[in-house]
Amino acid sequence: MARVSVTAPAGFVAAGLACGIKPDGVADLALVATADRRPVPVAATFTTNRAPAAPVAASRAHLAATGGRASAVVLNSGNANAATGAAGRNDAERTCALVAAELGCAPEEVLVCSTGLIGIPLPMDPLVAGVAPLSAGLAPDGASAAARAILTTDTGPKQTLVPGPGFCVGGMAKGAAMLAPAMVGPPSATMLAVLTTDAAVEPARLQVALDAGVAASFDAISTDGACSTNDTVLLFASGVAGVVDETALAAAVALACAELAEQMVLDAEGATKAVRVRVTGAASADDARRAARRVAESQLCKCSWYGGDPYWGRIVSELGASGAAFHPDRVGVAYGGIVVCAGGVAVAHDGGAVATAMAGDRLEITADLGLGDAVAEILTCDLTPGYIDENMRTS
Amino acid sequence: MARVSVTAPAGFVAAGLACGIKPDGVADLALVATADRRPVPVAATFTTNRAPAAPVAASRAHLAATGGRASAVVLNSGNANAATGAAGRNDAERTCALVAAELGCAPEEVLVCSTGLIGIPLPMDPLVAGVAPLSAGLAPDGASAAARAILTTDTGPKQTLVPGPGFCVGGMAKGAAMLAPAMVGPPSATMLAVLTTDAAVEPARLQVALDAGVAASFDAISTDGACSTNDTVLLFASGVAGVVDETALAAAVALACAELAEQMVLDAEGATKAVRVRVTGAASADDARRAARRVAESQLCKCSWYGGDPYWGRIVSELGASGAAFHPDRVGVAYGGIVVCAGGVAVAHDGGAVATAMAGDRLEITADLGLGDAVAEILTCDLTPGYIDENMRTS
Repeated sequence: MARVSVTAPAGFVAAGLACGIKPDGVADLALVATADRRPVPVAATFTTNRAPAAPVAASRAHLAATGGRASAVVLNSGNANAATGAAGRNDAERTCALVAAELGCAPEEVLVCSTGLIGIPLPMDPLVAGVAPLSAGLAPDGASAAARAILTTDTGPKQTLVPGPGFCVGGMAKGAAMLAPAMVGPPSATMLAVLTTDAAVEPARLQVALDAGVAASFDAISTDGACSTNDTVLLFASGVAGVVDETALAAAVALACAELAEQMVLDAEGATKAVRVRVTGAASADDARRAARRVAESQLCKCSWYGGDPYWGRIVSELGASGAAFHPDRVGVAYGGIVVCAGGVAVAHDGGAVATAMAGDRLEITADLGLGDAVAEILTCDLTPGYIDENMRTS
Repeated sequence: MARVSVTAPAGFVAAGLACGIKPDGVADLALVATADRRPVPVAATFTTNRAPAAPVAASRAHLAATGGRASAVVLNSGNANAATGAAGRNDAERTCALVAAELGCAPEEVLVCSTGLIGIPLPMDPLVAGVAPLSAGLAPDGASAAARAILTTDTGPKQTLVPGPGFCVGGMAKGAAMLAPAMVGPPSATMLAVLTTDAAVEPARLQVALDAGVAASFDAISTDGACSTNDTVLLFASGVAGVVDETALAAAVALACAELAEQMVLDAEGATKAVRVRVTGAASADDARRAARRVAESQLCKCSWYGGDPYWGRIVSELGASGAAFHPDRVGVAYGGIVVCAGGVAVAHDGGAVATAMAGDRLEITADLGLGDAVAEILTCDLTPGYIDENMRTS
């Protein structure tokens, strides 16, 4: 198997297996570690949800204790270990300690992520039994197994590899619903992502690169407006490739984040299309983001995208309700570059071309507010009966 | 036909007919007027959407010009006259002038409401032709015809009659989607409501009663989180019954608003159940409202209500993402009064009783934040394939 995703950068190993958290024998436990088990700089962003899951609290505390360094991250799917109280926090810490004992590092040098159902105690017996074979299986070719083991309702693994001058950035992620992350900026899904690079960079500089990348990618997607209790993005830097150009590193991290974020939206539950909502001409950057998010999270707009119906009036209504500065006579709307509304009113356009633009699996919508120079984008998807089917019952 | 709804209070007449705005011969034009065509005190609340429809702008301006008095309101369905620019504003004014000429009052003594598709010019020819027969048809028994003529996707008319000591309050309304009004308080559907009373009360005092009633009713419902361009509530006071107790009037107005708001949610597009989300124990009233609205507007929660799945973890996650003060170890959740989560974790409960509570067409969910004394409620509904069917294509 090729060395894709998290083990493509030199200095990392990974593993994944089925330990029995999921009842059906599907892979549910993953581990990414440094090849020598020694701690390296790690940047991290976490959900801003005030009901953070136990693994979020544990990982955050461990990074604070180590000054931003870790040797490994253990990830489980099938159970979010969220809304599980003090017992859940103990379970998260115990998981880290078990892995640390296998790897020969300190417990606070191990990070932990969970994804799955909320409110159910983490089943520790299968996890305890799984940690030893998982650790023993760590290998440069284990990235794909790890990427599969973190999935929940995702239909397939999400991986990326971005080469830079003298280094590279690899990554894996999961996320198909409860997907509207808010980690760096203002608000947000369960999404988990682990990125790795062989660049040598101190934790503080690594965090700057990750924050910028996350703000423009994971924090700018919203499939269903639900900000998860477990969202986590981690970026490990092994340093094997030596010191690199920081701008090039930031660019590669941003690109890796963007690729994983787009894979999530394309795999969103029930979705038939990814929709890029671009707001231009806003009076401020905040206004642009607020307006784009309001349109992206509108049930009514999402239904019309599913139906291929260019009902731009709903977009104008959501813009007007967004809280952004708005003038009804200045707004314009385009589907796939074809302007259907200008100066606040309908304009003649090629209906066949609009229908064609809406028929594909990717749609670009531009709403111009005509008030300033600020721009923002949110990547979202349509709302379909498949989403309801997926989410009407979980038990 | 009984004198129900808007003509139950003494001093009012109404009419409704099909003028041809809707292509299928369904009733689409309504008029409510004072019996003597003389202006009376009118209180009003309008959408806070910054893309208000032309009729909202016209009605607002007319009330400002008259100091809160009007003789009539003309309402059309089938076209929202929203996102129609200067031509739309002219059309709204012309409609008022046409009605005024028929009634023998001043144009600014006529108010106007529209509901239907956004972004399409109001078809004036049928409207012009319809105003004369509409005005000629004004009668005490015309309330039901008026209530039917304002409907869009509603499955039936929404009317109410609340008796008070020595007076009464009547009302009619429409609204089945784009339903999350925000008129009085912070944020909001197209919903239209016309209320009448025979009480004698000055405009300023009438507005106080209406604001309180709207805040606790229309502004506390959200079927789909979409705040319309056209939301309007009007309350006419004929004075025929003389001066009444103001507290009793406010109570009757609040009750009439609540009854109409509940009828809207019960008729929401595709919904199988009305869901009352009550947040208790919040640190502030703002926090309580924000938390209740966040849960009420969550696609994931709405799907689980449709499926009858008591997946309270989603509720906790939305509470944590709402921006309200939140402590993960203090939250509790109950379905139909049956506690499923306390102290932030799952508690043993009667699963059969929860299933029964969720199977009906009304569901009460309580989320206690455990932080203070503030309480708020939002009345909402579930999200179903029927909603998507209704909204995926409009043309």
